[in-house]
Formats: sequence, C-alpha cells, structure tokens
Amino acid sequence: MKNLKGKCVFAQSGGPTAVINASIAGGIIQALSEKNCTGVLAAHHGIKGVLSEDFFDMTKESEQELLALKYTPASAFGSVRYKLKDFEKDDTDYKRILEVFEKYDVRYFFYNGGNDSMDTCDKVSRYMEKVGYPVNVIGIPKTIDNDLAGTDHCPGYGSAAKYIATTITEINRDAAIYEDPLVIIVEIMGRNAGWLTASAALADITGYGADLIYLPEVAFSKEKFLSDVKSVTDKKGKCIVAVSEGVKYADGRYVGEDAAATDAFGHSSLGGVCGILKSEVKTLGIKCKAIELNILQRCAAHSASLIDVEEAFTAGKNAVIKAFSGETDKMISLKRISQYSIEYETVPLTVTANAEKTIPPDWINPDGVSLNEKFYEYALPLIHGEPHRRLKGGLPLYARLKYEKYKL
Amino acid sequence: MKNLKGKCVFAQSGGPTAVINASIAGGIIQALSEKNCTGVLAAHHGIKGVLSEDFFDMTKESEQELLALKYTPASAFGSVRYKLKDFEKDDTDYKRILEVFEKYDVRYFFYNGGNDSMDTCDKVSRYMEKVGYPVNVIGIPKTIDNDLAGTDHCPGYGSAAKYIATTITEINRDAAIYEDPLVIIVEIMGRNAGWLTASAALADITGYGADLIYLPEVAFSKEKFLSDVKSVTDKKGKCIVAVSEGVKYADGRYVGEDAAATDAFGHSSLGGVCGILKSEVKTLGIKCKAIELNILQRCAAHSASLIDVEEAFTAGKNAVIKAFSGETDKMISLKRISQYSIEYETVPLTVTANAEKTIPPDWINPDGVSLNEKFYEYALPLIHGEPHRRLKGGLPLYARLKYEKYKL
Repeated sequence: MKNLKGKCVFAQSGGPTAVINASIAGGIIQALSEKNCTGVLAAHHGIKGVLSEDFFDMTKESEQELLALKYTPASAFGSVRYKLKDFEKDDTDYKRILEVFEKYDVRYFFYNGGNDSMDTCDKVSRYMEKVGYPVNVIGIPKTIDNDLAGTDHCPGYGSAAKYIATTITEINRDAAIYEDPLVIIVEIMGRNAGWLTASAALADITGYGADLIYLPEVAFSKEKFLSDVKSVTDKKGKCIVAVSEGVKYADGRYVGEDAAATDAFGHSSLGGVCGILKSEVKTLGIKCKAIELNILQRCAAHSASLIDVEEAFTAGKNAVIKAFSGETDKMISLKRISQYSIEYETVPLTVTANAEKTIPPDWINPDGVSLNEKFYEYALPLIHGEPHRRLKGGLPLYARLKYEKYKL
Repeated sequence: MKNLKGKCVFAQSGGPTAVINASIAGGIIQALSEKNCTGVLAAHHGIKGVLSEDFFDMTKESEQELLALKYTPASAFGSVRYKLKDFEKDDTDYKRILEVFEKYDVRYFFYNGGNDSMDTCDKVSRYMEKVGYPVNVIGIPKTIDNDLAGTDHCPGYGSAAKYIATTITEINRDAAIYEDPLVIIVEIMGRNAGWLTASAALADITGYGADLIYLPEVAFSKEKFLSDVKSVTDKKGKCIVAVSEGVKYADGRYVGEDAAATDAFGHSSLGGVCGILKSEVKTLGIKCKAIELNILQRCAAHSASLIDVEEAFTAGKNAVIKAFSGETDKMISLKRISQYSIEYETVPLTVTANAEKTIPPDWINPDGVSLNEKFYEYALPLIHGEPHRRLKGGLPLYARLKYEKYKL
C-alpha cells in the first residue's frame, strides 16, 4: 500500500551470520530518512519482541554506530527460534501482533532471516491482509546456508564461504609440513544444502584446496568414502576432506544421525559427522584429524567478504525503499545481471517460505566429490574484497549501541 | 667464530605457526646479502633434510616470493619431529651431519623452532665444537605456545593470541543472540603453559571476552569448575569458557587424559577436554557447546598480527647478522625495552633447550580463572596491527617458491 504513514519495526531471526547486522543497519538508516516514517523500532529477539512489546528506539542511535553494525556479527537485537502457528488453526499470536501493531501504529514490518523467518513474515503479512490492517511487510534474506529460493544468493553466504575457503587453505598448508600420511576431515554446516561445504572448493584458486568434498546433495557411501580417501592419500600423501554435517546415506539416514537431536522447528540438530568419519579413516591405518568448524563459520566477521557486507547493507536499504513505495508480502531478491553485478528485486514471500534451494546436480562432477566451473563462476565473486573493519588494538570494535527501550 | 666463509643452512622444526616462514624469509634474505656467504640452502623437513642431503637452493628464489613467505603460514620447507640422541651415547646422526656440513661447506646453521628444536640446535652446536668443525649455530625461536625461556615472548604467539582473542569475541556475540542460558567451552592449545589460553582474556578489550579461563598453571577441580559455570550462567545467562588442552587435576593427571596418546618426544598428545567438560556442564541442565580450536589457531595467517610478522622477520635477519658477526650456540632473544619496543639479543641455547616458561603465578587472579593487568600489559602489544597480505579474489596468495633442489 502506497503512502502509508507510520512506524517501522525491524526484527532478526534464526542463526547469526557475519553480515545480518549490515542488513538491519541498511534498513534502519534508510527508514530514518523516509518522510512517511514516524518511528524506527528494533524488536528484541525477533517476533518475540513484538509479542512482548520489547522494542529498542533506533532514533536514539548515532549513524556512526549504526554504520558500525556493518562489521558486527551475530544478531545485534537478539534472535529467536519461534514458529508461528497456522492462523487458520490458532490465531492467538496473530491477534496479539495486530494489537501491538495498532498500539504502536506499525505500518512497516521487516523481518531479517532464513526460510523459517520468511515463513513467519509471510504468515504475518497474510493475516494482516485478511483482517484488513494496512502494513507493508518485507523479508530481508539472511543465511549462511544459501538455501533460500527466489534469490541468486543470500547475504551471509559470501562471508561464511570466504572464511571456509581461507581456513581450508590454511589447513592444507598445515597438513603439508610433516612427511607422514595424514587425512584432515573438516565438518561444515548445512543441513540439506551443500553450498557452504562446496565453498571449500573455492580454496582451489589459492593452489591449496580440499581434495574431497561430500555434499548432502550426493548420497554418501562409507565404502566409496574410504576408497576415495585411500586413493588420494596414496597419491598425494595428504588428503583434505570437506564434509557437510548433513551428508546422508542413499536411504536418507544422516551419517551423523547418532548425535542427532531435534530443534524447535522439528529439524534434526546434527553434529559429529567428522568424528564418525575419523574413526572410519583410522581403520585404514592412516593418521586422521577431525575439525568441526562449528559456529566459527557463521560469526567470523573478521573474515567477511566486502561484497557480502555491501550487498547485505543494500538489501536492507532496498527492503525499506520497496516497502515505502507500496510493496508488501515480498522478500528482497538479489538478481545477478552480469559477472559480477546484481540488482535488488522483490519476490513473493511464498516463493521462499520453507523452500530449500540445493546445489543443481549439473554443478557437481560425476565423481561426486568435486564441483565444476558452474559453481566456481557462481561463488567466486561472492567472496571478494576486504571490509575496512573498525579495530582497537588489533581486535574488532563492534557497534556500541545505546539500546534505549522504546516508550510510547 | 668471526669471518667464517661458507654456506648457510636453514631448517624449520616443530608445529607450524602463522609466522615461522617470516623468520626464515628474514634469515634467507639477510644471508643472501652477506659477503662471506657462498650459498643459501633450506633443508627439507628440518634436520632430516640435513641427514639426507635434501636441500633447496635459495639463490634461485626471487626476493618477491621470499617476501611473500612473511604471510605464508606453516613450514614452507617442511617440518620434522625427530629427537637427536645424546651424542655421548650415540653419535651416528652427528657424524652424518658433520659429513654433510663438510661436503657442502656449511659454516652457518639456523634452526627455527621451539624447545625441542633448540635442544637439537644446542646438541649440533656442541658436537661440532667438540670435534673442532667451525660452524656458527643460531636458533630462531618459534612457537605459538610462547613457552620458550630466555626471551620476552616468541614469534608465533602474537598471531595465535590475536586469532584466539578475535574468535572469542565472535563466539561471545554468537552466544548472545538467543534468550536461553548457554555455556560455550573453547579448547585451546598449550600442553603445560597457559599463554595461548590466557590470550582469550585479551578479548575483554572488545567488551566481549571469556568469562572463565582455565590454565594448566592452576590445578583443575571439577567441583569448582561446575560452581564457576553455574554462578556465571545464573548471573549473565551465558558463560564463555576458555580451557587449555593441558589442564590438570591437583594430582597432576591431565583432565583430557582419556584421549591421550604419546608423540615422538614422549609428550602426551592431548585433546578432548572440551568434550569431557561439556558432559559435566550438561549435568547442570544447561545447554552447552564445545569448540576445539584445533590447528586453526596455529595456522591462521589471515588473522596474523603485524607486530608478530615483523618481529619474526627481524628475528630471522638478526640470527644471520649475529652468526656472521661470530656468535654461535645461541638463540635469538626478544628483549622488551619499553611499552612497546624490543631489541634483538642472543642467549645461550642451554637457557632455552627443553625449558618451559609458564605464566608467573602473580599474573593470575586469586579466583584462578582470570588474569590481572600484568598479563594484559604483557600480551596486548603483541597482537597489534594488520599485515598487508597478498590476496587473490579474496583469498590468500601464498609464496610461490621454485623449490629447486640444491646441486653441488
């Protein structure tokens, strides 16, 4: 709806990335400049902050510190894993959100997150439309997993990919120093999509990449794995393996299933694949180290990609611009128009909500353990450039926000 | 011995650091400029390369690529864990080294490593003196562990400390995003000295440090650990724990002993402390993540400290300058003369060989889990500055050496 006058609410959800705060910074700074904007609020812990009227007042923050959010990892306003019910079945939360929107005169709602967050965003948008409450709702994509449909890639992916490729390069060099055969298995995040694990392949441009890459998109076989590892180690003496936490056997069972629990969205919470595979390699009589990159890969702002930081920021700005120009129930989408430049468009939230984009089969080589040039063309531009982070004594100096609670 | 004319041999030993190659680069570049130097050789895999006459010819390398070694982690010429026997008991290896030194007219020998390497260096030096073969032998200190006696600090420590402090800051921010209580245990290298683990404390200057630091210097108690963790989590909701792989109970047993094996020097090869402590924390009913920084902390050249890179390089240069001015059986020592500048001196190798410098007890607070201002004053200057690394498409572009084998 055009020319809506009222307040903006920003919220963050899901796991952190190095640049999720860059998006919210871009959005907030843009919102503060919109003439139809009567206030800018950041919800504490995502949708939960809306439900509990827990808001920070962004008009109290300096532009300098908001800009420092570009280089501040994790979710500056707190995140949440809270799944809204289907409002046709239970509209309790939605009624409450409506009440809060009305009370605060919220006319613009921005939700920064991954698949689950786009689902939340879509439900809120459709409910408000159904009850006739005018509010423009825009999702800002964010995920290191890069598994959101409807966008060329996701802000957050480039920085995580850069951290992984850099780390693989360093691990490769570390592995080379002794004469003895050695296998190093690096476990990388990504439940069903192998984008992050595939980024280990990018280290090839340094000359020191991964030898074997196991993606969730390719059925895993222990026999083939052991034969692959033996073959590389026999030939090169060392073998660097990148493996997704989400690798599955042909029957769909996760290799790391033993260590599985379930999160609030019903997803298995995986881990421990590298330990399981290390035990397998030891049966070959070859020394093996297992390294789980763990949360380091999602919060490593010190290794962020400049392209990613700037795209995340601009995606946030564009969310606000589109909303104020009347768009709603959309997600910001990055469209690649050349190698390499992008445009910011919008796609319906339904395109992305709960969908998972995986690596196209024809980007994976027939050996099942490497990627072809299509992947390199796609991913290499996303890790370019070094951001000028604010430092103090050699360490990162993150945004120092006032976090003043909003009072009506 | 002054005015010795002949060849220089450089060798690297022990585990990698981000800057060990900076030291050898400084040494090689200096050696190439010495008028009494008739050739510059790098031994392949440390002392083993000497025993097997496996040398690379450094006169074939360009200065540009030698300078790129400053930003290339791990040991560019390969490392080795090989302990020379006492020559009074078995002089087989020494006779062979003498034979090779004579054959190649080696008059300068530089060994770049930690305690064990300084021991090797000292033995070679004393043997050559005993048999009357004139050769100047200088050790160049290197270790992320910072446990070498006879020097204010070790090249390699500053960069590893910076990586750890940066990573702790990022982990702290990542931990903060959800409302639920969370403990994150970060396991850090260091067998008997807590310097690396203590560097987690440096993250305090960012405002986002570690809450509890467990050093090998302080007897570990499971009861106190659980009480510390509970107390911090009750108060702050989150608890960031930095723990050394080498923490020991009061009776001297390693906490991670279950996972222990033994390396070539008879040291226990530790690991798994964070997993053991995670199980303990779970008995408190608090969610806990365990992160082992593993080899990432020793090879992370992308997070190197400029001070460390430059000091490592200058230590290498000074080793050559001292040797050509007639010194032998010495190690380069960094002497702190102000906050912050250092001078390069020499100390007898016997001062450092097999000694281990631990954190002074009066640098540790009475709570046993934090460090006082003496540590911060000592360590903060060592992590300053960002090196201008050579990059290609956002990833490190390491030294591209020719590795031409030396032919007599």
